[in-house]
Amino acid sequence: MAVTPTGPVVCFGEILLRFSAPPGELLLQSPQLRVHVGGAEANVAVSLARLAIDARMVSAVPENALADAALGELRRWGVDVSRVRRAPGRMGLYFLTPAAGVRPYDVLYDRAGAAFATADPGAWDWDQALDGAAWLHLSGVTPALGPGGAQAAMNVVAAARARSVRIAFDGNYRARLWSQWDGDAPSILSGLLAGVDLAFVNERDLELALKQDFSDLAPSERLPAAASAAFQAFPQLTRIATTQRLESRALVGVLIDRQGRAVQSRPYSLDGAVDRIGAGDAFAAGLLDGLLRDQPAAAAIEFATAAACLKHGLHGDFNLASREDIESLVNGETADVRR
Amino acid sequence: MAVTPTGPVVCFGEILLRFSAPPGELLLQSPQLRVHVGGAEANVAVSLARLAIDARMVSAVPENALADAALGELRRWGVDVSRVRRAPGRMGLYFLTPAAGVRPYDVLYDRAGAAFATADPGAWDWDQALDGAAWLHLSGVTPALGPGGAQAAMNVVAAARARSVRIAFDGNYRARLWSQWDGDAPSILSGLLAGVDLAFVNERDLELALKQDFSDLAPSERLPAAASAAFQAFPQLTRIATTQRLESRALVGVLIDRQGRAVQSRPYSLDGAVDRIGAGDAFAAGLLDGLLRDQPAAAAIEFATAAACLKHGLHGDFNLASREDIESLVNGETADVRR
Amino acid sequence: MAVTPTGPVVCFGEILLRFSAPPGELLLQSPQLRVHVGGAEANVAVSLARLAIDARMVSAVPENALADAALGELRRWGVDVSRVRRAPGRMGLYFLTPAAGVRPYDVLYDRAGAAFATADPGAWDWDQALDGAAWLHLSGVTPALGPGGAQAAMNVVAAARARSVRIAFDGNYRARLWSQWDGDAPSILSGLLAGVDLAFVNERDLELALKQDFSDLAPSERLPAAASAAFQAFPQLTRIATTQRLESRALVGVLIDRQGRAVQSRPYSLDGAVDRIGAGDAFAAGLLDGLLRDQPAAAAIEFATAAACLKHGLHGDFNLASREDIESLVNGETADVRR
Amino acid sequence: MAVTPTGPVVCFGEILLRFSAPPGELLLQSPQLRVHVGGAEANVAVSLARLAIDARMVSAVPENALADAALGELRRWGVDVSRVRRAPGRMGLYFLTPAAGVRPYDVLYDRAGAAFATADPGAWDWDQALDGAAWLHLSGVTPALGPGGAQAAMNVVAAARARSVRIAFDGNYRARLWSQWDGDAPSILSGLLAGVDLAFVNERDLELALKQDFSDLAPSERLPAAASAAFQAFPQLTRIATTQRLESRALVGVLIDRQGRAVQSRPYSLDGAVDRIGAGDAFAAGLLDGLLRDQPAAAAIEFATAAACLKHGLHGDFNLASREDIESLVNGETADVRR
Amino acid sequence: MAVTPTGPVVCFGEILLRFSAPPGELLLQSPQLRVHVGGAEANVAVSLARLAIDARMVSAVPENALADAALGELRRWGVDVSRVRRAPGRMGLYFLTPAAGVRPYDVLYDRAGAAFATADPGAWDWDQALDGAAWLHLSGVTPALGPGGAQAAMNVVAAARARSVRIAFDGNYRARLWSQWDGDAPSILSGLLAGVDLAFVNERDLELALKQDFSDLAPSERLPAAASAAFQAFPQLTRIATTQRLESRALVGVLIDRQGRAVQSRPYSLDGAVDRIGAGDAFAAGLLDGLLRDQPAAAAIEFATAAACLKHGLHGDFNLASREDIESLVNGETADVRR
Amino acid sequence: MAVTPTGPVVCFGEILLRFSAPPGELLLQSPQLRVHVGGAEANVAVSLARLAIDARMVSAVPENALADAALGELRRWGVDVSRVRRAPGRMGLYFLTPAAGVRPYDVLYDRAGAAFATADPGAWDWDQALDGAAWLHLSGVTPALGPGGAQAAMNVVAAARARSVRIAFDGNYRARLWSQWDGDAPSILSGLLAGVDLAFVNERDLELALKQDFSDLAPSERLPAAASAAFQAFPQLTRIATTQRLESRALVGVLIDRQGRAVQSRPYSLDGAVDRIGAGDAFAAGLLDGLLRDQPAAAAIEFATAAACLKHGLHGDFNLASREDIESLVNGETADVRR
Repeated sequence: MAVTPTGPVVCFGEILLRFSAPPGELLLQSPQLRVHVGGAEANVAVSLARLAIDARMVSAVPENALADAALGELRRWGVDVSRVRRAPGRMGLYFLTPAAGVRPYDVLYDRAGAAFATADPGAWDWDQALDGAAWLHLSGVTPALGPGGAQAAMNVVAAARARSVRIAFDGNYRARLWSQWDGDAPSILSGLLAGVDLAFVNERDLELALKQDFSDLAPSERLPAAASAAFQAFPQLTRIATTQRLESRALVGVLIDRQGRAVQSRPYSLDGAVDRIGAGDAFAAGLLDGLLRDQPAAAAIEFATAAACLKHGLHGDFNLASREDIESLVNGETADVRR
Repeated sequence: MAVTPTGPVVCFGEILLRFSAPPGELLLQSPQLRVHVGGAEANVAVSLARLAIDARMVSAVPENALADAALGELRRWGVDVSRVRRAPGRMGLYFLTPAAGVRPYDVLYDRAGAAFATADPGAWDWDQALDGAAWLHLSGVTPALGPGGAQAAMNVVAAARARSVRIAFDGNYRARLWSQWDGDAPSILSGLLAGVDLAFVNERDLELALKQDFSDLAPSERLPAAASAAFQAFPQLTRIATTQRLESRALVGVLIDRQGRAVQSRPYSLDGAVDRIGAGDAFAAGLLDGLLRDQPAAAAIEFATAAACLKHGLHGDFNLASREDIESLVNGETADVRR
Repeated sequence: MAVTPTGPVVCFGEILLRFSAPPGELLLQSPQLRVHVGGAEANVAVSLARLAIDARMVSAVPENALADAALGELRRWGVDVSRVRRAPGRMGLYFLTPAAGVRPYDVLYDRAGAAFATADPGAWDWDQALDGAAWLHLSGVTPALGPGGAQAAMNVVAAARARSVRIAFDGNYRARLWSQWDGDAPSILSGLLAGVDLAFVNERDLELALKQDFSDLAPSERLPAAASAAFQAFPQLTRIATTQRLESRALVGVLIDRQGRAVQSRPYSLDGAVDRIGAGDAFAAGLLDGLLRDQPAAAAIEFATAAACLKHGLHGDFNLASREDIESLVNGETADVRR
Repeated sequence: MAVTPTGPVVCFGEILLRFSAPPGELLLQSPQLRVHVGGAEANVAVSLARLAIDARMVSAVPENALADAALGELRRWGVDVSRVRRAPGRMGLYFLTPAAGVRPYDVLYDRAGAAFATADPGAWDWDQALDGAAWLHLSGVTPALGPGGAQAAMNVVAAARARSVRIAFDGNYRARLWSQWDGDAPSILSGLLAGVDLAFVNERDLELALKQDFSDLAPSERLPAAASAAFQAFPQLTRIATTQRLESRALVGVLIDRQGRAVQSRPYSLDGAVDRIGAGDAFAAGLLDGLLRDQPAAAAIEFATAAACLKHGLHGDFNLASREDIESLVNGETADVRR
Repeated sequence: MAVTPTGPVVCFGEILLRFSAPPGELLLQSPQLRVHVGGAEANVAVSLARLAIDARMVSAVPENALADAALGELRRWGVDVSRVRRAPGRMGLYFLTPAAGVRPYDVLYDRAGAAFATADPGAWDWDQALDGAAWLHLSGVTPALGPGGAQAAMNVVAAARARSVRIAFDGNYRARLWSQWDGDAPSILSGLLAGVDLAFVNERDLELALKQDFSDLAPSERLPAAASAAFQAFPQLTRIATTQRLESRALVGVLIDRQGRAVQSRPYSLDGAVDRIGAGDAFAAGLLDGLLRDQPAAAAIEFATAAACLKHGLHGDFNLASREDIESLVNGETADVRR
Repeated sequence: MAVTPTGPVVCFGEILLRFSAPPGELLLQSPQLRVHVGGAEANVAVSLARLAIDARMVSAVPENALADAALGELRRWGVDVSRVRRAPGRMGLYFLTPAAGVRPYDVLYDRAGAAFATADPGAWDWDQALDGAAWLHLSGVTPALGPGGAQAAMNVVAAARARSVRIAFDGNYRARLWSQWDGDAPSILSGLLAGVDLAFVNERDLELALKQDFSDLAPSERLPAAASAAFQAFPQLTRIATTQRLESRALVGVLIDRQGRAVQSRPYSLDGAVDRIGAGDAFAAGLLDGLLRDQPAAAAIEFATAAACLKHGLHGDFNLASREDIESLVNGETADVRR
């Protein structure tokens, strides 16, 4: 339904079902679960589609009612799922206990044996997957899933590069996943970063990939130093973006280019947040939107950070905020009731 | 059930059904709606009835199950609905997406063609409607509904005045409603204000009605200046009341009389608010309660502002707080569990 | 996602939101509503898409969150909504009180002023709407909406005929809608039937359209006689299909062709039904599926009736039963737990 | 809101809160309860008010939020609760586990120490309670509550008789309640029946009150014989009415007068019932409606039985069916969707 | 809490979490799931504990919040879970779409990789597991899980036999599970049946285990013939029990002993059933209860079948009916409201 | 399931059912209640069992489904309920209106006539109740229930002392309960404190028990002075612990020993709390855990206060936080999503 002149953004990754406890309860404290669809790359795809950017999901799911429901939900929000494959294996699940008071969010992964994670990395048809694409978006979750995921991630990056599709990569480091198969995270992440144009990474992601330590620096100097080292190590890389959470419970976005020019958003308050899962994906989608629309860096980072902030006000992994909602926040509109 | 020696407060306006999304969700994000009854004047009527003030609703609703349910809900809280007419047209609806985090409340009106809005302004029986009334309460929503609403508002004010019923008017400026029929809001509001005793208005309402601009003044001087101009323009008007929201997320109430004497409540915290719709109506009802009970201005404004603050802790448009709850807040009682 | 060699089925009609009371309650007995999307033609579109038939909705909805949600829901189930127009007016609603015990279902329409009903009949772009279509499906609800709806229905039939698109029409007589504008139902329905290939009508629909009375005949002879008269009156018409509800609470489907050959399904039990709204639309879609797949009449009517029966086991207007579910019922599979 | 020329029907009895498990669950199987208001006499009052008969509740409840909620609910449906007294004690509760399959409904009373049951029988102001009343309705639950209840029941009957208020009495024998205080049920019921005009009793109630045994008779002869004996024993009594449940799961109503003339309704199907609690009260209210409107016996019993049947399709103790719904069932209208 | 002189019944099998769609909906049609705990042997354990029979679960679950919740639920109903092991792997899940109208229940297993199924069959400590046990109960689900499950089933039977613990075995044939690993079901089931005292099997289970065909016999002769062949083949076996579903939607239980004496329960109606999952387990537990209490065969089969019938009225896999509920049904008590 | 070498902690007190309104609503504003189990001592028992401390409940409940459900819930979380007696009387209830915004929590007790409160103080079997116990925990709620409760509290303290069981006592002063029977709270509390080892009391509790006034002292000196006086008055007493709520909405725990050594926890933020009922019991259990594990005072108070803080993030009376959750908070771990 949405078309951009330069072609769709292809999001490659696992689609998950999220089963959550009601607010203020532990998992299965009462006998009910709320269901949402998630997965880092699917979240980006939905955000983009909500912004009227043509978004295509490339993934593998089983042939069952759970997968049908997940695809239906992506279609509902306007994502093209026609190139999602059916494959043997389970549907990946995760169970979420929402945060309350000082208690953090707790994620219990149940994704072992999932169709995407166990798919043969050689079975993807990159011509079909990337056909006409303007951008490829993937994340560090895919290589963390196991050797197959790592190989598939490397393959898709190579395939995109070969077809001149620009590539965005979100670090999304998940220690628990890597530890399950003793993957060599630094080498794999470094290999991937070597191929991408835009990286959503912070100083800790870069420390890992570069095997460098920036912790001796003053906190405010770590990200610039890490970014500088990354641009040196990865000549393909043109931009690094990330968000930072301030003590005052506010979110700030930062965008750095090869020339070391950093632009930063103003702080966006996270007071009254109801669900922070997926905020990083909302940020990534917001920034991709700016790049696709050739926005100046300052406008792009402002929009992306406002998008990430608005995500905190919505249950579920998806950022369903509209362009109007985001722009209204960027513009500082203050009505607390719109009527 | 409740009787005041001086007769009932008659609330004249549209009764609405409110359909809301669950907290933290966009409208129809999940397939359920919560139902409340609302409408600025109905909200005032319910607040008064909860305070044991005799409250009578005068309105027009269709002959169907939605209207029956709305009237039943008003009856439940003690409002006299025996003089609500049945008339052709729909039941007015509004859809509410509740605020969460930085996202504001969003109201989607679906009140076109409603029985009240399309009622013939000549069809009201003011003798029956105002019989024995102590006060009439109406709001700026009614004239905003269209020429019929504007005429009905002017008629009821004239009828009340002719019967020596005192009149309270809440500005409640709704730009979206006025814009639908290009009504001459300034003239109409000014005409209404000329007839009322008590106006719930702020400096922006008065700028509109008086076609004057107070924005050159220091913020703290705008309301006094606007009130002063209003008292000059409307010799009938004896009091102006409004609330102000402080930076610190607290609410302060202000009451100004013809002599320019202003009394102000202490600030009431809005932290942890769950629903701010109807807070202005809770304030208006709280102040009317004070006037009906001949309270001093300082006590009346304190009670009204505490009522408005408590409304923020209740889902729905109605302030269901009891007199004891409000007085306990006014008195600064601090138990956080009453047992 | 679904493609049929002969092109999509275009469903032209109003999309509605359905707000229902919980089972066993009257409307607003408790303060919650369940939300589904409906409308006779949208129901057919969803059924077809679930059967992997390419289905395209052509309609008009307002530019607001309610309409967005309705379109999202159609997309979720695979319907192409890219040619649904945005137009001034409201979203059509209906309120459903579900049946319980001897109490029937009760429908409260709230569709006055809706975008589809008030759309200018000349504003539709039939080239775009019918582009490549194999079939057009519409129903008697559209002409019942008012002069604009009646004109639009006649226009779309003429446009389809001019483009050699086959036409299916579901009588769906709604007395309450026709009575609101004193439309000449017999002439309009007769005009429409003159242009269609396949009519979902029973003897009462045909009595109305033909202005003939078959009530003197034995009950079992009425439909054959009415069908015979209809085939004579409408030379274009090749098939008539309908369902009949037996005393024993079972459903039987009947399909009659121009040669007077009637095939009838076996009876399908309606015991334990939870929601019968949309069963007729499920039947229509089931039969269209058979025709599109060139099934023999007996197989087609069996499939269609089984589909209608299965609809009774699902809340909401849509028949979400899969082809496998329907075929399993046709084949009389009897497992009561599939595992 | 509703007025009958002959004055209100006064319903004297305990108001209860009902807390129920969700359908298909045992009590507290999952951690939630649904709340309804009930009590045999309150149920009659609500039914009457829904039929636009002026209904007044006379009862005693504590001064707390539970009682406020119960009174609010009665007001919502139009019952006059202005003469319900506040008294020391608890709010009477009962917990309901709904029937499912072969499992019967299960009622767990928690009404010990309730305000009504422990009220001093001498503290009622019968002048105020019965002022202008056309009928008094009470039931066998009140005398079963204990010596105070028994005395209050006798007093109210005497007071009504002294004021020429007609009296309806529903047997409602509750063995569990009588057994808690070893009340002499036969004498007390017999004393009450001596004073009433209309008794809702079956042969077992009469066996108890008359200390006679009709079980030797053929089943179909028991009720006539018991009624005949009752009319002889209680010269004041003019009518006996009851319902009978047929093997075929249908309900039949019977009305017998002093002359031994019995009229019987046709059977009303109970298939698909969702909640049978309160059906007897719906029947009583339906019959009182007929008497108040001077209907012939046959029409009155038909209406009353149809009302009782419709109650089975509604969750909660109250019969919320409208006069139109009931008449439509009496008239055998067969639409299964009204639209 | 419950103690039987002869020691506990040990239930050995997988514990599952069941996630179900709400009644009348397909899986994930709306975004919520209801959670119950199940698994054939766990169901038996809960039934027994509800009947005050000492029941001990022996199983393996992962170390996570899902498993904690499942064990908590078993504890809640009185099952001893102190010998459930923690082991690597997932928690076994299944998704249930409840039946409605003609639509059957649909079970989607998601148990691949579960802790119980993948447990090393040599890792069980039978001394600890069976310590003091009167009976061992297991089912045909365990051997169907894979080679490990099959081996574990054979081991536990041998271990019980060696310790003179009596053994009950429920056939529970699940074609979908066996087909996933091409297990030799006939040999394995036959091997197990050779060791058990009591088998819950029907003629089809026995056809499979005996590799014999009884389908040439008249339907009523199949079970007796199959039982006779089984008693011949398995000298250890003393009783066979099963239920049969009649055309009239009623359930009948049958118990056959080595002497060929068959006793049959009267039919129990399944009308109005809400959830039939677990009814077979309720039957097995009911029969074990009778044997443990040395009931005559006729009384035992009546109790067991009534228990199975009552299960149909409860959501979830567990039969939570009490001994009083079951006996009341056996005794034909007919109150439809107990109060 | 949980065993501590020194024997179980026996919790003696009333078990209550809590019925709460949904967040943001008044009691019965909408017709539903959420159910939790509570009671100060039961809350402590559950907390301890969650920490793998052997916890035994000693109480009295009626023989009905409400009591069964309450015991099942305690068993679910691992509490030994085998020594809870069945006794005549009701199940104690309380109705909770949760706080929202400035509105405090509101507790409506409905515990008159409860089995525990009306139990004969001489009917307890202390040998059985205290068999092998390491600690007895009770609270000031029990003596407040009436003369029987007061006597039972004194008896259990004496019995524990006679058996060398250490005793913890939580002041839990409830003015509303004491006022119902004019109990001599100071004498009774003082009598109890004379027998205990560990007291959870603040300066106001001690003022009452000691009949001393510390309000002339500076706020920060009141607790030390009161503790000092208490240690002098009660030679048995070795430790006093309490929590203090800071202006900044943070919680601080304090532990004082006979030598006057006070240790204080760091402040724990209460921002975003969802339910503070039971926080004091979570604190008591946390401190008992530390003592049972021979932790240093500083570690014990830190753990206890963190436990109390985490309770605020959970609906219901129970603190279901795990040892890991509490230690992670003590250790200042800052991940806001654990994955």
